[in-house]
Amino acid sequence: MSDEEDRPLRAEGANPFGVGIGSRPKPKGVGVGPKEGPGPIVILVTPQMGENIGTTARAMANFGLTELRLVAPRDGWPNERAFSAASGADWILQDAKVYSTTAEAVADLTRVYATTARDRDMVKPVVTPRRAALEFRALIDEGQRAGILFGPERTGLENDDIALAHTILSVPTSPRFWSMNLAQAVLLVAYEWHMLEVEVPEKFLRIGQTEPATQAEVQGLVDHLVTELDDAGFLRPVEKKPSMVRNIVSFIQRAEPTGQDVRTLRGVVRALTRRYQRGQPNPRPRKPQAGS
Amino acid sequence: MSDEEDRPLRAEGANPFGVGIGSRPKPKGVGVGPKEGPGPIVILVTPQMGENIGTTARAMANFGLTELRLVAPRDGWPNERAFSAASGADWILQDAKVYSTTAEAVADLTRVYATTARDRDMVKPVVTPRRAALEFRALIDEGQRAGILFGPERTGLENDDIALAHTILSVPTSPRFWSMNLAQAVLLVAYEWHMLEVEVPEKFLRIGQTEPATQAEVQGLVDHLVTELDDAGFLRPVEKKPSMVRNIVSFIQRAEPTGQDVRTLRGVVRALTRRYQRGQPNPRPRKPQAGS
Repeated sequence: MSDEEDRPLRAEGANPFGVGIGSRPKPKGVGVGPKEGPGPIVILVTPQMGENIGTTARAMANFGLTELRLVAPRDGWPNERAFSAASGADWILQDAKVYSTTAEAVADLTRVYATTARDRDMVKPVVTPRRAALEFRALIDEGQRAGILFGPERTGLENDDIALAHTILSVPTSPRFWSMNLAQAVLLVAYEWHMLEVEVPEKFLRIGQTEPATQAEVQGLVDHLVTELDDAGFLRPVEKKPSMVRNIVSFIQRAEPTGQDVRTLRGVVRALTRRYQRGQPNPRPRKPQAGS
Repeated sequence: MSDEEDRPLRAEGANPFGVGIGSRPKPKGVGVGPKEGPGPIVILVTPQMGENIGTTARAMANFGLTELRLVAPRDGWPNERAFSAASGADWILQDAKVYSTTAEAVADLTRVYATTARDRDMVKPVVTPRRAALEFRALIDEGQRAGILFGPERTGLENDDIALAHTILSVPTSPRFWSMNLAQAVLLVAYEWHMLEVEVPEKFLRIGQTEPATQAEVQGLVDHLVTELDDAGFLRPVEKKPSMVRNIVSFIQRAEPTGQDVRTLRGVVRALTRRYQRGQPNPRPRKPQAGS
């Protein structure tokens, strides 16, 4: 299962996400090493399925979390199915620590979060994953050690485990369908943590090997096109010509053209006009069309 | 697998997430119905594994997306494994539309996003899931129809599919481990969409059946405690008493006590002092300790 699940989703090459140009990752999307800065600790309490431990490790690795603790995993530890589901995030599973009780697993922590759902009549602050990420950052900067408890599939955390926590972490799902997969819950917490850590522009233009067009190149294209359109009788009536040209220029600029785009478009114009000039059959000479 | 993966993660009861007090969801976390407002359309291009189609549907349901399209799923459609992995998000699978080609699947859309990773030397704007969510909201408010292409596990989208897209959607993963599970990629996109849609306080205090303590109740507790501590000789030397009392009050307030907390704490004080007054053995009378 794990092999076929692999899929690249990150931008490589000319991008700001941290992988340099030309540095192709290994086939399974595993980079150079496991080292990341300190982050919150993921604690799976009595996890039932090895697959979910593995996909949890993968989700942690996707977003730079490294420290995994397991409280009394049902099928013992190590678990072969966990490793095969981790799709290469093995270092997290190899370093995972196993405890008999939740109390032991959190003994060295100074701040504990519990992911839960049911209303247990316990008085706790409740935070979203986004807010939790901010709190983790502040706590860790202070030298505190923060951990997040995730309960077993299906039943969730026991009341005694939740009582150990300072804060409830709750994902604001759709009220119509709120049952989440264990690893997906871990993923969202890890994702929000990572989003705080990375500085990624929310939008940028990936232009590969080429450069954005200069204004001179764009103007050259526009002049070329306008000349040809004038010849073809397209820019009429003459009082409409300025607004027609403006619309064409706006369209070109909206596409944020590269130098290569401009060269390609000039080639297109040349090809179309050459065909027209060659006197081939053209039933609508004012709007020459490509193709035979 | 799907049964055991189920786990509740949402706060029920007194919470602002949309489920009313006392409205227990059905056992599998499925609420009253599939209807949500219009959102972006999820398009899986040649998905390989039925399980991933099912977990994609579940992730969509968690965050209120409803419209799924499948381009040439490898194992045909419908697929039994998809339904068993969906953990109850059946309506999404039942309504899924199947197409032979990506071009057909996007024919009625006005804006197409492609999730991808490899640098394909195509000039496209690249956005994060967070930015994409803002764009989806704006597009849909304008009456546009937006869809997101997700490529097959392992290989990702073909260049011809990416060329159809206006925009690249890229998740800023850790550069060390960027290979994401298909459904988890869908989950993040759906999550960011939902986070825009819901109005959830990032932090609130869940207090169950009780009420926050009034200042009078807190003051009553403090007065009670200070009286007993004075009697026990704890608040000495006298010039330090004001700061000691301030510290105690601050501690109590930091816990944001409920009325029940205050009653419990007064019971604790009474119990401790009663024991002391009964003249039981107490080697350190200035710091009475509970327990035998």
